[in-house]
Amino acid sequence: MGDDSEYTEITYRVADRIATVALNRPQARNGYTVRMADELAAALDRADADEEVRVVVLTGEGKDFCVGADLSQGGFDFDAETGPGPEWQEPAGRCSKRIFAMDKPVIAAIHGAAIGGGITITLSADYRLAATDARFGFVFTRRGIYPEGASAWYLPRLVGLGRAVDWMVSGRVFGAEEAHTAGLVHSLHEPGELLDAAYALAAELVASTAPVSVAVTRQLLYRMSGMDSPLPVHELDSKLIGSITSNPDAVEGVLSFLQKRPPEFRLRAGADQPDFLPWRQEN
Amino acid sequence: MGDDSEYTEITYRVADRIATVALNRPQARNGYTVRMADELAAALDRADADEEVRVVVLTGEGKDFCVGADLSQGGFDFDAETGPGPEWQEPAGRCSKRIFAMDKPVIAAIHGAAIGGGITITLSADYRLAATDARFGFVFTRRGIYPEGASAWYLPRLVGLGRAVDWMVSGRVFGAEEAHTAGLVHSLHEPGELLDAAYALAAELVASTAPVSVAVTRQLLYRMSGMDSPLPVHELDSKLIGSITSNPDAVEGVLSFLQKRPPEFRLRAGADQPDFLPWRQEN
Amino acid sequence: MGDDSEYTEITYRVADRIATVALNRPQARNGYTVRMADELAAALDRADADEEVRVVVLTGEGKDFCVGADLSQGGFDFDAETGPGPEWQEPAGRCSKRIFAMDKPVIAAIHGAAIGGGITITLSADYRLAATDARFGFVFTRRGIYPEGASAWYLPRLVGLGRAVDWMVSGRVFGAEEAHTAGLVHSLHEPGELLDAAYALAAELVASTAPVSVAVTRQLLYRMSGMDSPLPVHELDSKLIGSITSNPDAVEGVLSFLQKRPPEFRLRAGADQPDFLPWRQEN
Repeated sequence: MGDDSEYTEITYRVADRIATVALNRPQARNGYTVRMADELAAALDRADADEEVRVVVLTGEGKDFCVGADLSQGGFDFDAETGPGPEWQEPAGRCSKRIFAMDKPVIAAIHGAAIGGGITITLSADYRLAATDARFGFVFTRRGIYPEGASAWYLPRLVGLGRAVDWMVSGRVFGAEEAHTAGLVHSLHEPGELLDAAYALAAELVASTAPVSVAVTRQLLYRMSGMDSPLPVHELDSKLIGSITSNPDAVEGVLSFLQKRPPEFRLRAGADQPDFLPWRQEN
Repeated sequence: MGDDSEYTEITYRVADRIATVALNRPQARNGYTVRMADELAAALDRADADEEVRVVVLTGEGKDFCVGADLSQGGFDFDAETGPGPEWQEPAGRCSKRIFAMDKPVIAAIHGAAIGGGITITLSADYRLAATDARFGFVFTRRGIYPEGASAWYLPRLVGLGRAVDWMVSGRVFGAEEAHTAGLVHSLHEPGELLDAAYALAAELVASTAPVSVAVTRQLLYRMSGMDSPLPVHELDSKLIGSITSNPDAVEGVLSFLQKRPPEFRLRAGADQPDFLPWRQEN
Repeated sequence: MGDDSEYTEITYRVADRIATVALNRPQARNGYTVRMADELAAALDRADADEEVRVVVLTGEGKDFCVGADLSQGGFDFDAETGPGPEWQEPAGRCSKRIFAMDKPVIAAIHGAAIGGGITITLSADYRLAATDARFGFVFTRRGIYPEGASAWYLPRLVGLGRAVDWMVSGRVFGAEEAHTAGLVHSLHEPGELLDAAYALAAELVASTAPVSVAVTRQLLYRMSGMDSPLPVHELDSKLIGSITSNPDAVEGVLSFLQKRPPEFRLRAGADQPDFLPWRQEN
């Protein structure tokens, strides 16, 4: 699914080194499907592989970001008689897991309804910007089902365990203000200004930050912050800092700062990361 | 201790599918004792085993929730000469550990003093609602002792590491407003309205949520949010979501939502959970 | 480096049972060097070993706390040709790791710029008090380098994962108000009143808290809060609480409270901790 024409439930475009991935079933309020999940994962693969792309903006066409699973579209991709095999992955996780593994930062721009999978797919994004009209709900307990997208891991880290338990046990729907105060979203914007704000942030990241530094930093935060102890993080930090004496971007970072000019970083997010990072062995 | 008449330091009653467990030594400001700890654990066993009960409200009789350990009542249940054996459990943990393992949500309603064990026994509850007259203190360093009830695990997750360190290192007493702002309590209420608010929340959980979904969701949050990585959570999510096609409550959840009527969930919190959940092997 | 005269890049003094460690390169805005890192670690060793010292205040001489690494002072202490050996520790971590292991609480008093290593060395401190003129930046991605001082472990625990990702991925500089709201700093003070506030807090800790209780409590928070589950914390709590019947400070804690007089705790932070604490085997 590398070609835009192959996507039927999302759109993908690149401009100004920013890839925009948009859920595109506005007639169904971007109801989430297995196909949409797989197209999102494919589009994120593509953005990660394209050296031209530095940042991803994830948004939705129409009035809503995503109202959650649309099971009317054929349900799950396993045989209902035999059930799923051990390798089967639930659809929200196919997207959130792919965002987790990205070498590039992802900014979710959320407006209207973001319910169930519609919010859990964004929890692994680096930023969640929201319109003032956004509404959120981890409604799983009200539907007789379960939270997905590894949201039980992310949500307490984002908003604290108490608020996460409240939202997930009660399943209640809540507004943008509560989401912002709790830390679920980074900033609130008028609906007409949401995408502009997301692109302004993306442009700042493109202009100011080193791709490899960003890739490593977000993985450090996601992979090492869950460790029992800070001591293994110290060890990895020492390897990373020990490697910067031979790193041209580190030289450019200091030079551009001293010369008060914008930096021109050259290392590539995907190809030029240090090879000793433990999670680089994964794929 | 299945019979109410056997409790001497707490009370237990059930109405409207809500069990109320109340500390009941108001003459001693609900000073915590080993017997109270064991009665609390027994009452929570009972609430968990009773299919009629959907939610537990934990509160205290009299002007205070609990002023902490009352060692005047005989101290600990081990021989002071030989010290405790390796299986001995400290009293606050006997309650907080039992709440942790519940299949049903627990709402703590806190008024007046909640000091030492009086606050740590509530940290594993799903909700802490507080009266505006509530006062809190993790006073252990001021008494020459140590935090208990696994509070060192819960508190940083609830209020962040910085605030947790402040409260626990300094041992200072603080008010309801600070507790609320920090996220220790979910909401503040006039003292005369606290219990009503707790019952209103309990009633909403009874009316709106599926018992098995609630049981699994709270365990996911408590057991999986501490993992090093979200990847094992993705795996368990996939098993859970893969199981819903044969789950009558999931059907009822969707149907009642589409038909805009209250759901009637049938699965039982304790008996009907998926058998592949790793923590179900524990007991 | 036990003697004050041996320090060239910091100062060390003790008064009123409080050790003050100050970065002392004001002409270079306290630019961080390998020598400064090693002097900080030596000073913290000294404060920990001195039974007279109960609390450490960490501050900086001049207008800034620390503007980050000053590589003009000779760079790193390894051969640039061969690179660092596997035991090499990056300089920010040498300080933050030593604070982590302290038996005594550390209060960082931060004014002016606290950038890069200038803020990461303080994340393992128990308190961060800031002047209203303080500015912070985890600027690593803007310099082509990486976060250090195990900051990827501490920062999400202090301010939540969302804010940590924002600050560390964007590398932007932000002010004292944002730092305070997010929970990075405990309190804000007029620049002229910052040190007084730090000493007032230190004096309260000296007067009110038991040294062994503080040492154990801070380690419980740092070492046990990262565990997957609260159950191992319950076990250690039970050992700790089971030990208090033979603990003279626990008796003094109760007696002084009942007699409404200041406590006189006798156990020493370093020498008198229970020998069963798992981290006591480390050193």
